[in-house]
Amino acid sequence: MRAFAESARRKGSPLVVGLDPVPSRFPRELRGLPEPQATLEFCLGILETVEPYAAAVKPQLAFFERLGPEGMEVYAALISAARDLGLPVISDAKRGDIGPVAAAYAEAHLRLYGATSVTVNPYMGSEAVLPFLQETRSRDAGGGVFVLVATSNPSSEEFQQATDPPLHEVAARLVADLGRKDGDYLDVGAVVGATRPSVGRRVRELLPETLFLTPGYGAQGGGAAGVLPLLDARGAGVLVNSSRAILYAHEKAPTDYRQAAREAAHGAREDLRRAGIRY
Amino acid sequence: MRAFAESARRKGSPLVVGLDPVPSRFPRELRGLPEPQATLEFCLGILETVEPYAAAVKPQLAFFERLGPEGMEVYAALISAARDLGLPVISDAKRGDIGPVAAAYAEAHLRLYGATSVTVNPYMGSEAVLPFLQETRSRDAGGGVFVLVATSNPSSEEFQQATDPPLHEVAARLVADLGRKDGDYLDVGAVVGATRPSVGRRVRELLPETLFLTPGYGAQGGGAAGVLPLLDARGAGVLVNSSRAILYAHEKAPTDYRQAAREAAHGAREDLRRAGIRY
Repeated sequence: MRAFAESARRKGSPLVVGLDPVPSRFPRELRGLPEPQATLEFCLGILETVEPYAAAVKPQLAFFERLGPEGMEVYAALISAARDLGLPVISDAKRGDIGPVAAAYAEAHLRLYGATSVTVNPYMGSEAVLPFLQETRSRDAGGGVFVLVATSNPSSEEFQQATDPPLHEVAARLVADLGRKDGDYLDVGAVVGATRPSVGRRVRELLPETLFLTPGYGAQGGGAAGVLPLLDARGAGVLVNSSRAILYAHEKAPTDYRQAAREAAHGAREDLRRAGIRY
Repeated sequence: MRAFAESARRKGSPLVVGLDPVPSRFPRELRGLPEPQATLEFCLGILETVEPYAAAVKPQLAFFERLGPEGMEVYAALISAARDLGLPVISDAKRGDIGPVAAAYAEAHLRLYGATSVTVNPYMGSEAVLPFLQETRSRDAGGGVFVLVATSNPSSEEFQQATDPPLHEVAARLVADLGRKDGDYLDVGAVVGATRPSVGRRVRELLPETLFLTPGYGAQGGGAAGVLPLLDARGAGVLVNSSRAILYAHEKAPTDYRQAAREAAHGAREDLRRAGIRY
């Protein structure tokens, strides 16, 4: 996770900008184009405009997959563009399979497409995480794997809290067991939402040296206050994701979408700074 | 799940052939080709040869993703070829994301690529399953969604059995809550491995009217006996997957790979019949 920690420090920002391209929400000037082309142009515009404020970017695979093989070309081009801008990339793939299958996913997203890190679903246990980790370790590029631990969506509760111990504790232990120190953090990170403070606090107790990737800030409703229970002893340890509130800021401010996204990204960075979040 | 039940009855076989194409294991005559082309030829050969013995086929997404955008063209071509042969398709995607993201995955795999069904990871709760279900319900093609409940891999135990109640019970309840009757079965199926009989028996108690998709038969070590605890009151209710034992049968029998696959698929069907598994 060195690549992310260093980038956050360089930018003075723990912000991750999520790339969730939804063509029906693109600005008018891109709507006449074929969807893959419009998606590429839209996301390139976002990347360039948010670069000064973002520690990393997080493409959401589903929105590229729905565009078919061409969508995967767009995904490849965006990862390449992000890396040219010096932005590390978290592929939000949430893949969760085992052994040679997980190794094939790791090969796809980390080696072929060149993401720095990938999100992984732990339902199938350590075998679902290790092949990704082996791939990032072999490359020694400061990447790592983010394992879903406590997600921010409403229905996560019915599943992740239906047991004793709750699932976020089991997943947190998996993270602690598999991770190795690499710089300030383990090379296995945790996805921990900003929407349930008591859960966040508990996961932080279990994972004092883990970098969290935190959804649920911005359009999903949680403010910077929701992030505070997730901070580590240094007041750091969190990458805060915002997707739609930045990408579609132009819907609320009738201006150029890049200008609107720039203001939203700048505003998010300032909001996180004011809340005292370190990096 | 009507499409699968009808196909199994037509073929007299609950066998699902998994398409896990690993180029280094292809027969010599395909090794000189570029990987995407070799993958397409290999899998087309498998599809045609196993068609008489298989109720369905199950492409494993990871092995197409690792080939980049071209791999997704191959995936598309194979789904189309399978459907032309009358074989329903389960996309083994194990996607697990929520709301608009899950809807985008459903659009990709069920609408654009045209799979009959898809495997889904329940970690994020009902929101991760419903968008796929809405898509299959809107198409009324007898498809449905297979939710991971009790997987067959060794490390699933450390995760899925680490809680009280164990995770397979929580996931089974999710399946029961979300499924609606469509023919003999709910339109939400369950992935339940053949490797842990007591778990399988318990999941069947909780899900008497659910079609199971069962890995762990064949190369993963479980024989037909491992499937018996999963059967429903009629002695049916299970689709039994075999991937590597059929695809790479030529490694053990130095003959044409299609001939070896045909014999392996025929043998699997006979083995399942002898064990008394109905469909």
